[in-house]
Amino acid sequence: MINTQDESPKHQLKLERVGIKNLKTLIKIDRNNKEFRHIPKINIFMDLNEDKKGVHMSRFIESITEILEDEVRDNHKSLEQIGKHILEKLKIKHSYFSAEIEFESEIPIYELTPVSKKDTIEIHDIKVRLRNNNGSWIKVLEVNVIGNTACPHALAVNKKGTHIQRAIGNLKIETDFDNDIDLEEMIETVENSFSARVFTLLKTEDESFVVDKMHTNPLFVEDVCRNMLSIASKKFKKSKIHAECLSYESIHRHDVFAEGAIET
Amino acid sequence: MINTQDESPKHQLKLERVGIKNLKTLIKIDRNNKEFRHIPKINIFMDLNEDKKGVHMSRFIESITEILEDEVRDNHKSLEQIGKHILEKLKIKHSYFSAEIEFESEIPIYELTPVSKKDTIEIHDIKVRLRNNNGSWIKVLEVNVIGNTACPHALAVNKKGTHIQRAIGNLKIETDFDNDIDLEEMIETVENSFSARVFTLLKTEDESFVVDKMHTNPLFVEDVCRNMLSIASKKFKKSKIHAECLSYESIHRHDVFAEGAIET
Amino acid sequence: MINTQDESPKHQLKLERVGIKNLKTLIKIDRNNKEFRHIPKINIFMDLNEDKKGVHMSRFIESITEILEDEVRDNHKSLEQIGKHILEKLKIKHSYFSAEIEFESEIPIYELTPVSKKDTIEIHDIKVRLRNNNGSWIKVLEVNVIGNTACPHALAVNKKGTHIQRAIGNLKIETDFDNDIDLEEMIETVENSFSARVFTLLKTEDESFVVDKMHTNPLFVEDVCRNMLSIASKKFKKSKIHAECLSYESIHRHDVFAEGAIET
Amino acid sequence: MINTQDESPKHQLKLERVGIKNLKTLIKIDRNNKEFRHIPKINIFMDLNEDKKGVHMSRFIESITEILEDEVRDNHKSLEQIGKHILEKLKIKHSYFSAEIEFESEIPIYELTPVSKKDTIEIHDIKVRLRNNNGSWIKVLEVNVIGNTACPHALAVNKKGTHIQRAIGNLKIETDFDNDIDLEEMIETVENSFSARVFTLLKTEDESFVVDKMHTNPLFVEDVCRNMLSIASKKFKKSKIHAECLSYESIHRHDVFAEGAIET
Repeated sequence: MINTQDESPKHQLKLERVGIKNLKTLIKIDRNNKEFRHIPKINIFMDLNEDKKGVHMSRFIESITEILEDEVRDNHKSLEQIGKHILEKLKIKHSYFSAEIEFESEIPIYELTPVSKKDTIEIHDIKVRLRNNNGSWIKVLEVNVIGNTACPHALAVNKKGTHIQRAIGNLKIETDFDNDIDLEEMIETVENSFSARVFTLLKTEDESFVVDKMHTNPLFVEDVCRNMLSIASKKFKKSKIHAECLSYESIHRHDVFAEGAIET
Repeated sequence: MINTQDESPKHQLKLERVGIKNLKTLIKIDRNNKEFRHIPKINIFMDLNEDKKGVHMSRFIESITEILEDEVRDNHKSLEQIGKHILEKLKIKHSYFSAEIEFESEIPIYELTPVSKKDTIEIHDIKVRLRNNNGSWIKVLEVNVIGNTACPHALAVNKKGTHIQRAIGNLKIETDFDNDIDLEEMIETVENSFSARVFTLLKTEDESFVVDKMHTNPLFVEDVCRNMLSIASKKFKKSKIHAECLSYESIHRHDVFAEGAIET
Repeated sequence: MINTQDESPKHQLKLERVGIKNLKTLIKIDRNNKEFRHIPKINIFMDLNEDKKGVHMSRFIESITEILEDEVRDNHKSLEQIGKHILEKLKIKHSYFSAEIEFESEIPIYELTPVSKKDTIEIHDIKVRLRNNNGSWIKVLEVNVIGNTACPHALAVNKKGTHIQRAIGNLKIETDFDNDIDLEEMIETVENSFSARVFTLLKTEDESFVVDKMHTNPLFVEDVCRNMLSIASKKFKKSKIHAECLSYESIHRHDVFAEGAIET
Repeated sequence: MINTQDESPKHQLKLERVGIKNLKTLIKIDRNNKEFRHIPKINIFMDLNEDKKGVHMSRFIESITEILEDEVRDNHKSLEQIGKHILEKLKIKHSYFSAEIEFESEIPIYELTPVSKKDTIEIHDIKVRLRNNNGSWIKVLEVNVIGNTACPHALAVNKKGTHIQRAIGNLKIETDFDNDIDLEEMIETVENSFSARVFTLLKTEDESFVVDKMHTNPLFVEDVCRNMLSIASKKFKKSKIHAECLSYESIHRHDVFAEGAIET
């Protein structure tokens, strides 16, 4: 039987990450008695020693498939837990020193509009990454949330008003696997850092509420970024917190940006 | 010599467009005594009769290469003219009934900021398409320009101000090859259709000018779209004019959109 | 009460499509006793008469929300049916002549690998569009499916083999609302049009099967496109069928492309 | 005069990167007596102390504009040199500890086809990043180059042939500002690491050459990645070298990937 992957490579160099990118599959999660379904984009990697030509790529897929077919309900209570089981299964099939899995997906959050109190569903982009480094487990949770900035400088110098724009807040938390952190709480942190939160449904009275809020809470991207870091550092302990805000300026063709980090 | 392309196909069906997508090359244009350089994304297609298995793809590239190497300066005075020469050259190499070439690129425009009168260069996305339909030539020129909308409804109902956001205007003009239309004039048309034009450089006094302009000229995407159609219909004769405006709402996660057409 | 949208516009021009783009929400479908969940990207538009300044955008969201909250199970048996109910609801809230809704999503298909007969889930991109034109309903179903092409010309002229590459097949069917067409059958049509179908999981024996299949079934993009048109025209009656194949050439930086249409 | 940026922020936190993203402008470079023109996407950032509310964003643009208007020809001999002058100019206008500029662009390379020796222009994506860290200058050069992989395992186990696909090689070099490294040499390094180099124009004899080359030089993404690291480590001294290869598998919907690093 030919096993090209186990042959000796031409250049004996260790590689940090070898694996699969942009794999899509269906994942069902049972969290707080609610079923979530994801069709995430999955990246999965392991390191490769200098003496092996290649990784057996099909073992990644098998590990994913076997874990997803597992009927034990408790094994499916979060993406990070499924990820951990996949990397553990992979370790049995294919020895590694470090390995990593990432899920890129979306979650729906049920909200009420701010004044009219109507039901609305808001969809947010999330990323869950899990890394096994020689047996120790690190997870990185990430959310991308849409909001806005109203420029405080233009508001201070102009009589007619200020410039306002859509902005994207990104909050990333790296912590131990066992440190329970809710994606929903991370999303709330970002939403509360903007000039105003946004909603899919807005009746006239809600729209007025949001427009007022933007004008009474004008913020630079720098302010939004610091807000995220400040709120997150109170909520999420024993974590490396990283925050970014990108604003689609309404007075320019380009975007403005702020990025910072803090450790708790 | 084997010529698989000229064999008979399994299913004898005529195809509308067969060719190459996303080819990149360097093109130099000599227009109004200024040299423009493009690295456009090029799509090039021809129709294929039901009795041929395939198109000789390398003949597209050869036609492009031979025309671009042509030293006659007058042959390079616009993307549409180069496109015409490429399709004429292709016709000699490879018989077709209809053929088409598209260039996706950018153009720089030299401007002055509105109040401080500083120099600024603004870059805009353009598309130039040329179609030969049994010998008759149609060109389609397209520009994508960034600006903004300030909501007139929110301005009318709120005391504090309105919501404002970045918007994208798209103007497309289909006309005879010989009808001279400047991309720069199309860009100006879109810029004048927004609540306010935007600039890469804005000194404080310029920024105030833009903020004021947005508040004195509040527009829905519907208004921006109609402005484009109205201005364009006066400027560009014997044309099919198509306009779109997409606005990155600052109070929502989604975008709003308007699209219309007019013939002159 | 101020109603800016109902005012008279500056330029009295009719607009074809006014509405919302890139809205995301959660939709549950009950089809053949299986529950599907989508988080589609939704576009929704209506036409706008020359005498009205704007569309009441919140009515789109309300129509979507009210239909999705509807507990009648039969109302949720396909994306096109939900779309129809949304446009009917919208008609009550906001008069229009024509309106349109599009859902961009993904569907999972459960398959067996070709030789080892292992379970595998394959995810495909789909688009469902529904248009109401003065009371008559047209639907457009679209699938994007990944496969491959092996070049028949290179296979004929080279001793060592041919060039092979990933390709994307797009099949679009426009038909009456009542003409039942399965997205799964459309996906199967595209998969059977390639040199070989692809799978997420491939054991060694499956991989050999796919590699063999590609070499015994070499196809140009033109062939793939005609295959789709030919198979689809037998399966899907009273339809406008449109097919495209784009191939990420392994011997070039650019892609090759074929497009055709047929009516049944 | 109101100077909101210099006020004290609500949360006194230092930020790592504050600035502008996705700005586009026109840049002319005079290198080896040839004029190159770029319309790069530019990102420019500086750090922000905990005691200042914001960065004066217009000073970034002014620094860029003033350097680009500079007529001294020697100031424009590479993107990294222009970047250095922009960050030096920015330091005068706006104090910082660290600052960074990135240019994302394309370069054309004039080549001959492998057998027929025809002229062909190949376009490659590049990125040039420059960082000033408290006065010390680090540059990071990056190229993205298209090529292919032919699977050595499938070639070994199948009689008919193997699977082949387009692949992307990414090579990144971090080094001192004064260490002269040619983007062209980096591109050549990546091209020589694939199963075969690709060309925009291929006559039949060239295509056969490429197809033969792929079959006599079958490589995993792991091999391509190690090839890049090995060749680059011989060519580029005193550098941190990082290499990635992503392959658009023709037998799967997903991509495979390898990443490694080496220091010289």
